[in-house]
Amino acid sequence: MENLPDGFLYSGVSCGIKRSGKPDLGLVYSSFPSTVAGVFTSNSFRAAPVQEAAERLENRDRFRGLVVNSGVANAATGKAGREQNRSMIEAAAEQLAVDPREVLSASTGVIGEPLPLEKIRGGLPEAVDRLGESTEAFSEAILTTDSVTKVYSQPLEGLSGNMVGVAKGSGMIRPDMATMLAFLFLDVPVESGWLGEQLRRACRRSFNQITVDGDMSTNDTVLAFATELPGREKIGPKHPNRQAVVDGLQRTCRRLADAIVRDGEGATCVIEIRVEGAEKQTVAEAVADSIANSNLVKTAFHGGDPNWGRIFSSIGATSLDLDPGRVSIRINDQPVYRRGEVPPVSDELEQSMREGETHRVQVQLGNGSSSARRVTCDLSEEYVTINSEYHT
Amino acid sequence: MENLPDGFLYSGVSCGIKRSGKPDLGLVYSSFPSTVAGVFTSNSFRAAPVQEAAERLENRDRFRGLVVNSGVANAATGKAGREQNRSMIEAAAEQLAVDPREVLSASTGVIGEPLPLEKIRGGLPEAVDRLGESTEAFSEAILTTDSVTKVYSQPLEGLSGNMVGVAKGSGMIRPDMATMLAFLFLDVPVESGWLGEQLRRACRRSFNQITVDGDMSTNDTVLAFATELPGREKIGPKHPNRQAVVDGLQRTCRRLADAIVRDGEGATCVIEIRVEGAEKQTVAEAVADSIANSNLVKTAFHGGDPNWGRIFSSIGATSLDLDPGRVSIRINDQPVYRRGEVPPVSDELEQSMREGETHRVQVQLGNGSSSARRVTCDLSEEYVTINSEYHT
Repeated sequence: MENLPDGFLYSGVSCGIKRSGKPDLGLVYSSFPSTVAGVFTSNSFRAAPVQEAAERLENRDRFRGLVVNSGVANAATGKAGREQNRSMIEAAAEQLAVDPREVLSASTGVIGEPLPLEKIRGGLPEAVDRLGESTEAFSEAILTTDSVTKVYSQPLEGLSGNMVGVAKGSGMIRPDMATMLAFLFLDVPVESGWLGEQLRRACRRSFNQITVDGDMSTNDTVLAFATELPGREKIGPKHPNRQAVVDGLQRTCRRLADAIVRDGEGATCVIEIRVEGAEKQTVAEAVADSIANSNLVKTAFHGGDPNWGRIFSSIGATSLDLDPGRVSIRINDQPVYRRGEVPPVSDELEQSMREGETHRVQVQLGNGSSSARRVTCDLSEEYVTINSEYHT
Repeated sequence: MENLPDGFLYSGVSCGIKRSGKPDLGLVYSSFPSTVAGVFTSNSFRAAPVQEAAERLENRDRFRGLVVNSGVANAATGKAGREQNRSMIEAAAEQLAVDPREVLSASTGVIGEPLPLEKIRGGLPEAVDRLGESTEAFSEAILTTDSVTKVYSQPLEGLSGNMVGVAKGSGMIRPDMATMLAFLFLDVPVESGWLGEQLRRACRRSFNQITVDGDMSTNDTVLAFATELPGREKIGPKHPNRQAVVDGLQRTCRRLADAIVRDGEGATCVIEIRVEGAEKQTVAEAVADSIANSNLVKTAFHGGDPNWGRIFSSIGATSLDLDPGRVSIRINDQPVYRRGEVPPVSDELEQSMREGETHRVQVQLGNGSSSARRVTCDLSEEYVTINSEYHT
């Protein structure tokens, strides 16, 4: 792996939570203190580690460690779950020999089961032993139903530093067994408030634009660690090269978000939806969400059918004040509905529907200048099979 | 068919719109003028016949006829579609020898294709010839992807009259090929404004509580015809026996709505969701909608799995101010999550999940006294197959 940030060590081990014996405990050690910013699920029933991390980030902005387990989400576990999460953090801090207040945690897996604390305690010494510069074992240890690891690293242009992002998905597909988690690490010091602002902005343009089945997990978490390597200049809102950090956060989040959709359970293609010409941002987003979450649109793409009637109907299903005589729809750059007219389906469109792995839906509302983007995948028989055959 | 209202004649014929040759043109004749009330889709892109019927009901409340075609929805057809719909109405009125202003229409089928007016004109004389007292041919002629006809008739208790309701569904499953249509006929005169009020109320408690895939058609229409047979007393808000009409409308709408869910494409079971103890009605409805539209909940029921974690997560996904420590969830009357506690899954529950054709989800939010009900069906591989293999 190239372009990794200095100052971070990663590991992943099997501590016995997953019956399969696959890695299920990940650890990250920050050699110097890191400024951390976070973005969390808006699900009302946030899991214990999400509640804890949000509280910790309010009271402190420098951290030295991160512990993540997969297999059990520690969600719907009440006060006992909060205590067990703190015990996991304390055990990790003890092994890392850092202040327990300087460690964050995340969990992903089954809802409603208690955290298997003894297994985690048992696995931590090995996790510390194995800490190293590769993100590989860590990126495997945080997976649940994902079929591939999701890692993206890059140099920060114009700064002597690098950024790496590690994510797991399947979350919105299967929030009871999984979750969207993403962790970003960079080796340039960044001002805390500004880092949070830029991370939230990057999430709005990436993770918050993807949907697999419209569900939202109790555990979704994005954390960015910017470590304070000695001798490096701090980046903030007035630094001339700040754009490198902004671009890095956005590119990393976008790449990881796209990778999550592409690895959606049962997905055979990706559908990118752009809605333009809306009166307001909220209208553009509501229309894009309605299309992206329509099972009928998703099954049509699964069947390779440029079925614009389903797109048209799902735009109208928002019940917003829209004029069908001003609306135009394109699929894969070919017009299919143009302000009330229906051009014949072109051969190019038929072919792109059969052969493409990524499809584009563009909707022009003809009502203003606001726009929105959503990325989703098709709905296949395999999605239903996987999610109905899995048993609690 | 017993308990049919007097004064209405029905027919259904094949006029050649459907390639299958199945009946696709339905006609109803009201021997005396009927007071009519309607409830229409809230989709922003209402089809031509929906726009026309809504306008007609604003300007007039007595009608003599109804013409319905299946196979082409006359949606996304602009001004030309409005004109063709009016031509269909005029042709029907001419054949029925009534004033064209006294006829209403409805269409269901493919979006974006022009109405095949010549076929409809060609079929109308036969439709008039075949008018008779049975609803059977009419109930077949309005179907699209439905597997069974949906008819429910009953006497109006305490009044010398009857009510019959005829519906087609699959609409919310497949709004580009179908639509929810329901027509109610009763042979007691009813005051127009009060009939509309009671019909809207009955729809809120029936058709507006069902969801198959969360989609909403451009053509959804419910019409109630109350005919003014000579010598019968008019029913209004002060009539001592008015409750017979209220109950009749509610029972008919409820029965037809349940029949639509049960006949949902690919459905193998029905799921009835009740949310209680909400602070406000809107909260109860948002929680019930979130559960009913969750693909994860629907696939779990398809697999016979009492997966309360998916229900829990979809309640939280509303992002409303709810306390998981006050929430309780029951599946088929068995507790699965009780204010933070997780009781073991009982044998009765396992068995009911395997064997039941109707499942019950009860959610107690512990926050107030408002409640909501939704009825949906499971999500199966067959739903995906049907909706991805169908081509425009």
